[in-house]
Amino acid sequence: MTRQKKPVIFVVGLGPGNPGEITPRALEALRRCDLVVGYSVYIDLVRAILPDKEMRAFPMMHELDRCRHAVETALSGVTVGIVSSGDPGVYGMAGVLLELVHDMRAEVEVEVVAGITACCSAAARIGAPLGHDFAVVSLSDLLTPWEAIEKRLRLAAEADFVICLYNPASKKRRGHLRRACEAVAAHRSPDTPSAWVRMAGREDEEYRVLPLGELANAELDMFCTVFIGNSTTRSWGDRMVTPRGYDLPGAENE
Amino acid sequence: MTRQKKPVIFVVGLGPGNPGEITPRALEALRRCDLVVGYSVYIDLVRAILPDKEMRAFPMMHELDRCRHAVETALSGVTVGIVSSGDPGVYGMAGVLLELVHDMRAEVEVEVVAGITACCSAAARIGAPLGHDFAVVSLSDLLTPWEAIEKRLRLAAEADFVICLYNPASKKRRGHLRRACEAVAAHRSPDTPSAWVRMAGREDEEYRVLPLGELANAELDMFCTVFIGNSTTRSWGDRMVTPRGYDLPGAENE
Repeated sequence: MTRQKKPVIFVVGLGPGNPGEITPRALEALRRCDLVVGYSVYIDLVRAILPDKEMRAFPMMHELDRCRHAVETALSGVTVGIVSSGDPGVYGMAGVLLELVHDMRAEVEVEVVAGITACCSAAARIGAPLGHDFAVVSLSDLLTPWEAIEKRLRLAAEADFVICLYNPASKKRRGHLRRACEAVAAHRSPDTPSAWVRMAGREDEEYRVLPLGELANAELDMFCTVFIGNSTTRSWGDRMVTPRGYDLPGAENE
Repeated sequence: MTRQKKPVIFVVGLGPGNPGEITPRALEALRRCDLVVGYSVYIDLVRAILPDKEMRAFPMMHELDRCRHAVETALSGVTVGIVSSGDPGVYGMAGVLLELVHDMRAEVEVEVVAGITACCSAAARIGAPLGHDFAVVSLSDLLTPWEAIEKRLRLAAEADFVICLYNPASKKRRGHLRRACEAVAAHRSPDTPSAWVRMAGREDEEYRVLPLGELANAELDMFCTVFIGNSTTRSWGDRMVTPRGYDLPGAENE
């Protein structure tokens, strides 16, 4: 008896949203797919690169539907790709899909293909804010109680992590950034170098390096990534850099 | 008077260490360089892709020398690339170089080209451990006092962050992983899903998903990345997944 090969679902990270930052491995995975599903904006990006690929666009907020569709289609013997912006493992589709496949006991292989996540692509635009230990926190309270988010921010600030915020604001969520800044302020001077980066790596990207004391007033949206420095972070002009250590300049690291 | 264009230094992230995970943008930046400098292992990787490129390999532990060499060479009118594995902004060369250029007042442009950092490439191998808020901590105490590292670990555990450890061990540093596990244990059950991934994305990659209670005994080295789950992280077989929220299964996120 030959064992039938299981169908494959690739969960593919597209990076920041420009073709130059999609890895060859991600592209190769998409080429192998018979069908690619994803949120409509990301499907448009794939269409620009692989115009002949069969694709199905889903609206936002329907992750479980997308995953179920992918699993059911794969079970019919088809290779399916699910695309995420950034990295599919960071607040992305990989976890939802893996849980669904496990809970359904679906006989499907899942391969996660990493992409450049927003904290790295956004950081590169302004220098090196993540040069030392950092914490990544989403300000979306759709699935996480705000109290848990605020507690994380307070403790991350106390621990002197550089803090990177995903989803700092959306149409429905105004004021979260201000509350986040207040939670951090107990452990950081208002002069602490901070920054926001919008649409990193895309044509209409924007960014601004500014003191923490001014960050709360920034008008941001869901396309922004925010950085709040640690106690050693420096800034000049449009640059923000967190040194790799606390030692004197001239020290060497591995 | 025409203003002379400033020389450029590209700080380029090579990702996990296989050609399929170097972005086209990184490759294009390297192609534009007259000289590429870096730690010898990464220079070998570039040589495999761009065999005719002029390169200069440096031993480990000489970051400042590498950067000074890059700046001085660039100032003579040459386009220089500095390569890092992973992302150059995460414990990488970008910060050191930017600080040096700033402090030297060198008339040089620096462009940081992001790469896939180890927490993302390693996470993809085992599923989606970083599906929710996470903290990245290096266990190297060459430039950071151990007390500061331990404090971060304790507070990150208290905040219920997924914790990702870079540099969990090296030839000179044995026992750091055990002390890190002890720092976390006050706020995590010994059953907490954890994992280590070695040489993610390379031919000889290895990984293991195991309970936190067994992690301290793992024999790791500097090529490993470690994950310790939060209170909701699940594992089965070789998979480790942190759900995106604390709500019931079936909830939808943006």
